[in-house]
Amino acid sequence: MGAKLQTVVVGATGYAGMELTRLLARHPQLSTPLLFGRDGERPVQNETAEVALLAHEAGTAVEPFSWSKLGARKVELLFLATPHELSRTLVPEAIERKYRVIDLSGAWRLKQEQHRAVYEFHDPDPEIAGELTNQAVYGLPELNREQIAGARLIANPGCYATSVILALAPLLRAGLVDREHGIISDSKSGVSGAGKEPSPRTHFVSVADNLSAYSVFCHRHVGEMLEQLPLELGEFTFTPHLLPIPRGIMSTIYARLRRPSTPAEVEICFRDFYRGQRWMRIFPPPQLPQIQFSLRTNYCDIGFCLADDGQRLVLISCIDNLLKGAAGQAVQNMNVMYGWKEDEGLN
Amino acid sequence: MGAKLQTVVVGATGYAGMELTRLLARHPQLSTPLLFGRDGERPVQNETAEVALLAHEAGTAVEPFSWSKLGARKVELLFLATPHELSRTLVPEAIERKYRVIDLSGAWRLKQEQHRAVYEFHDPDPEIAGELTNQAVYGLPELNREQIAGARLIANPGCYATSVILALAPLLRAGLVDREHGIISDSKSGVSGAGKEPSPRTHFVSVADNLSAYSVFCHRHVGEMLEQLPLELGEFTFTPHLLPIPRGIMSTIYARLRRPSTPAEVEICFRDFYRGQRWMRIFPPPQLPQIQFSLRTNYCDIGFCLADDGQRLVLISCIDNLLKGAAGQAVQNMNVMYGWKEDEGLN
Amino acid sequence: MGAKLQTVVVGATGYAGMELTRLLARHPQLSTPLLFGRDGERPVQNETAEVALLAHEAGTAVEPFSWSKLGARKVELLFLATPHELSRTLVPEAIERKYRVIDLSGAWRLKQEQHRAVYEFHDPDPEIAGELTNQAVYGLPELNREQIAGARLIANPGCYATSVILALAPLLRAGLVDREHGIISDSKSGVSGAGKEPSPRTHFVSVADNLSAYSVFCHRHVGEMLEQLPLELGEFTFTPHLLPIPRGIMSTIYARLRRPSTPAEVEICFRDFYRGQRWMRIFPPPQLPQIQFSLRTNYCDIGFCLADDGQRLVLISCIDNLLKGAAGQAVQNMNVMYGWKEDEGLN
Amino acid sequence: MGAKLQTVVVGATGYAGMELTRLLARHPQLSTPLLFGRDGERPVQNETAEVALLAHEAGTAVEPFSWSKLGARKVELLFLATPHELSRTLVPEAIERKYRVIDLSGAWRLKQEQHRAVYEFHDPDPEIAGELTNQAVYGLPELNREQIAGARLIANPGCYATSVILALAPLLRAGLVDREHGIISDSKSGVSGAGKEPSPRTHFVSVADNLSAYSVFCHRHVGEMLEQLPLELGEFTFTPHLLPIPRGIMSTIYARLRRPSTPAEVEICFRDFYRGQRWMRIFPPPQLPQIQFSLRTNYCDIGFCLADDGQRLVLISCIDNLLKGAAGQAVQNMNVMYGWKEDEGLN
Repeated sequence: MGAKLQTVVVGATGYAGMELTRLLARHPQLSTPLLFGRDGERPVQNETAEVALLAHEAGTAVEPFSWSKLGARKVELLFLATPHELSRTLVPEAIERKYRVIDLSGAWRLKQEQHRAVYEFHDPDPEIAGELTNQAVYGLPELNREQIAGARLIANPGCYATSVILALAPLLRAGLVDREHGIISDSKSGVSGAGKEPSPRTHFVSVADNLSAYSVFCHRHVGEMLEQLPLELGEFTFTPHLLPIPRGIMSTIYARLRRPSTPAEVEICFRDFYRGQRWMRIFPPPQLPQIQFSLRTNYCDIGFCLADDGQRLVLISCIDNLLKGAAGQAVQNMNVMYGWKEDEGLN
Repeated sequence: MGAKLQTVVVGATGYAGMELTRLLARHPQLSTPLLFGRDGERPVQNETAEVALLAHEAGTAVEPFSWSKLGARKVELLFLATPHELSRTLVPEAIERKYRVIDLSGAWRLKQEQHRAVYEFHDPDPEIAGELTNQAVYGLPELNREQIAGARLIANPGCYATSVILALAPLLRAGLVDREHGIISDSKSGVSGAGKEPSPRTHFVSVADNLSAYSVFCHRHVGEMLEQLPLELGEFTFTPHLLPIPRGIMSTIYARLRRPSTPAEVEICFRDFYRGQRWMRIFPPPQLPQIQFSLRTNYCDIGFCLADDGQRLVLISCIDNLLKGAAGQAVQNMNVMYGWKEDEGLN
Repeated sequence: MGAKLQTVVVGATGYAGMELTRLLARHPQLSTPLLFGRDGERPVQNETAEVALLAHEAGTAVEPFSWSKLGARKVELLFLATPHELSRTLVPEAIERKYRVIDLSGAWRLKQEQHRAVYEFHDPDPEIAGELTNQAVYGLPELNREQIAGARLIANPGCYATSVILALAPLLRAGLVDREHGIISDSKSGVSGAGKEPSPRTHFVSVADNLSAYSVFCHRHVGEMLEQLPLELGEFTFTPHLLPIPRGIMSTIYARLRRPSTPAEVEICFRDFYRGQRWMRIFPPPQLPQIQFSLRTNYCDIGFCLADDGQRLVLISCIDNLLKGAAGQAVQNMNVMYGWKEDEGLN
Repeated sequence: MGAKLQTVVVGATGYAGMELTRLLARHPQLSTPLLFGRDGERPVQNETAEVALLAHEAGTAVEPFSWSKLGARKVELLFLATPHELSRTLVPEAIERKYRVIDLSGAWRLKQEQHRAVYEFHDPDPEIAGELTNQAVYGLPELNREQIAGARLIANPGCYATSVILALAPLLRAGLVDREHGIISDSKSGVSGAGKEPSPRTHFVSVADNLSAYSVFCHRHVGEMLEQLPLELGEFTFTPHLLPIPRGIMSTIYARLRRPSTPAEVEICFRDFYRGQRWMRIFPPPQLPQIQFSLRTNYCDIGFCLADDGQRLVLISCIDNLLKGAAGQAVQNMNVMYGWKEDEGLN
């Protein structure tokens, strides 16, 4: 047995960063990860009980980030759970220093300029940034396993995007869906998806006993969905909602099949597409996924209902936004990159 | 000033019944309502603190129901907050005894046999039941105010149906929507909509931290929507979800306009249709209703987003399922029936 | 019938301010209140849907505060729902300008310097501040009705303090409690009690699925309890907890009776003390108040259990922290000040 | 490496049973457990998605229980997650059949008849039942590790009892607490502690936005606390409350130290007592445990505040009621019984 892999988490105190830290700390192929806050300037809030417990669990403290701290250890792989602007700055240097990177932000997910525009990146070196954008692999193992295996830079997918892409890819790739008719995803997410920064909209009193739609027709994850699926902007409507729960996503997706089909045909399409995929669960009708079923797992659960006309299809896709939608998927990507079993450290 | 109206609530201890009792007890045109349980046989649980407080608030106890108790008082109007089977039995006798009735169940809402079939009514006298079915007025004042004013039997609308019909009626009646393209309502309801009877699916642990879809393509409220709107079964997809909140409904509705329009045109359509309606609030874009905004009010809040193509429309419709979706609407119907101001007792 | 009273709310957009605004807007003795934000400098967030709906409901907009805006109207009474530092500044000027004031903050509740110390007030004119401190009447009508009636400055009680003082006053004043043995209040509050300012501890993810104790032995409301009750610091332990609910307070209070008593004796002590009090409800054993029972009402609900030894007493006291614990009590105080029925505008 | 241990879960579909099943299915020393419903008569609800997912995760179906099904496999250890009446019937036969048993119910926890009385057991053979009652070991490893190691019958502690006993044992055994002054535990539990059976009090609408006290002075877990601690009935007051969260317990405990002490002395008492205990975390003041910190772990977290007088002590003790309060502790007990590391299968 060889030496264990040395990993690093930058942004270990955010929601995804904490979840990731817990997973890495228990992963059998890894030595204790190095943990850093998001920001080299501000001192890390090690004094909070929450971070203290995390550090205790991980067996190491969370420190302010600096490149020099990585030199002493034989670091191979960096996880960035940082805001996208910071990822845009850190990644070029990380790649230059020969690290492999799994970036959990939206910084490197989008190939097409029209989709990237919403992020308003200000790259110090646009040429290098452009090169890295092209090299980056969209880290959805069920679709892109081979490129992930050889990648230096993984753009870990957005949480909403994961739930939608995995539900639609089988049918769209098989050409079963009438794209011109339009596809709708009515998605609902728990609050951790909005990040840890306190704001009026994440205040307990604003969220509890409530439901609200937001970013209708303009959510940033739509670009990812369009790039990973055979789907055009005008064919797709995406409405996210904020649920009064801490975590979990459900996407209720509406599509029209090209020709009348049976539930068995739809189920077979999913089962064939995801045969052997460790983290996909297809529900046989009439069973449907619920958010609780995939909570605190790395599963993407998919179920569906087909109308009597055999064409109107309702898909239900559920994930835990912090696991399959963020940290769990990042670990799954690492497992693919290093040739380990895909559920290593995720059970 | 004339005498005050004597009302009766049968089923005063259910969720809608309790809400209704609170409203009636404070209504300035009414004397203290008579309160009955759902069932003449079982003793009413007056011993529970909840019912004791309600009775104290209303100034009268909740008793087992019997017709003879109504005789002594000059009762004019009955509210039935009873299961639909029981309403189907009570209403013929109530009408025979010359009472006016507002029934909050699904017993008398549906004119078309194909829609009624899901309820599997067993009427002792099918002829009378059929006659009453024809006479019953669907109690949505914003659409049917005139018939309500003169009705003897009001079928108070279902909660989901209220949220969907009020959102779609203006556009569908104006012929702006491409019906053949199909309309989708992705609706979400708080748990009180499922009634007070304990069951595995209303257990706190099943609902909290969860979201679940149910009755996809087969919910009983669909019939009401089809009968009240110019809409055919094959044109409409309805997906209800159970939210981890006690009360409130949001329907996120997807429709395609016949021709490219502007947000202003859509807003005007709504404002014209609902001009002077006391309990409708139209939100100017980009503001959207949230469940909290209409909670504990009788408002139906409607907002919308129109895609850049001017055709893909997302409507958001929110109500409190126990008020505009049940007890509040019942009081509004009474106000219409007796020519009172429509917000009497509802502010 | 004389003219209606003109009131003002400063801080109309906080949780207590919004609740107060709703109450005043419907109060039959008042004309439309003038509404101001907390801060003369910052523009009021009238653009948020929440404030827009409030303004619509109240029939007037929320404006930045300035004294000059009050001059035009015959303002008589000011409600301050402002942070205590701001109240400490505004009140001297308001009294100078001959307004009566009901202040909902902690600025004027404490007579004893040792209790005030925790607030670290920086008064521009300490002499006037001291004089007003002496003049201020602690606005708990059940205890101080007469002084309230004639007061120019009402210090509206803290929410925790209201729940504890009302539960303990009857027994302590009757000398039934063994004070030296010590009294404990284990109190639990919904999140609105922590205010509207977003912070890590009010983030939905921090509060949901959680319970936390805080400020053990050092909460600012303890001073009020000690001043209003015959109770010394060393005799009293107060532990507040943050509940995962938007509103409501329960205080579970532990005391030892001087001599063995019966439940009937305890109940009579409460009933005698609170005879004729509109907003007190005493629960007969074995019934106990729950937070839901007083939610969205101005009631303080009190129940108790007495151990078999007749001495160990557990009191349960519940209020809605935004009503009897803030805005409702403020309205009740106004009703007392102006000689109106004590439930005017509160039903 | 020897053969893996064959275990059995009776009552695998209750909340504790499901949690236990998940733990056993991943435990490295065990083969796939046999899973049974609570009741030999009723068919197991394998059709529910929840149980189907559990069975899939465990790698085996849940069957109706019968002793004959155990014969074919070399079963050694039975976990009973059954109602106490059923445990009272099953255990004598299990012991007769030479199985070791860990019983999660209250059936075998109490040595003293006066404490057992509340359960009203009807034993077919009182003599054998009495013998087993004496043999049963109270399965709190931090206190009774040695007896657990050799036990045939483990009575797994109650959830409230675990949180209270572990918080009080160090101080009481060291004689630091003034017992005659009285000790109070104000405890709060999530709803899963009330079991899976639907009832009015576990209905989502009854629990959400609420807090309620219950069983004051008469909760069944008090007997366990008194038997495991040096504490008499008249010295202890226990008030449980139902929290609007699915899982987690916090006990806020009030005690008086015999003589003025320092926080350091109290902390040392805890640290000495629990030195080397894998599943105890002592929080250094001023940090306090919160329910979230121990959620989904087997930890018991303990923190405290000491008043300035050095005598009034507030202890905070948190556990996950389904783990350290039930299934996790059962696994910990198994680990002790078989000489495995105490965190095997619990990380």
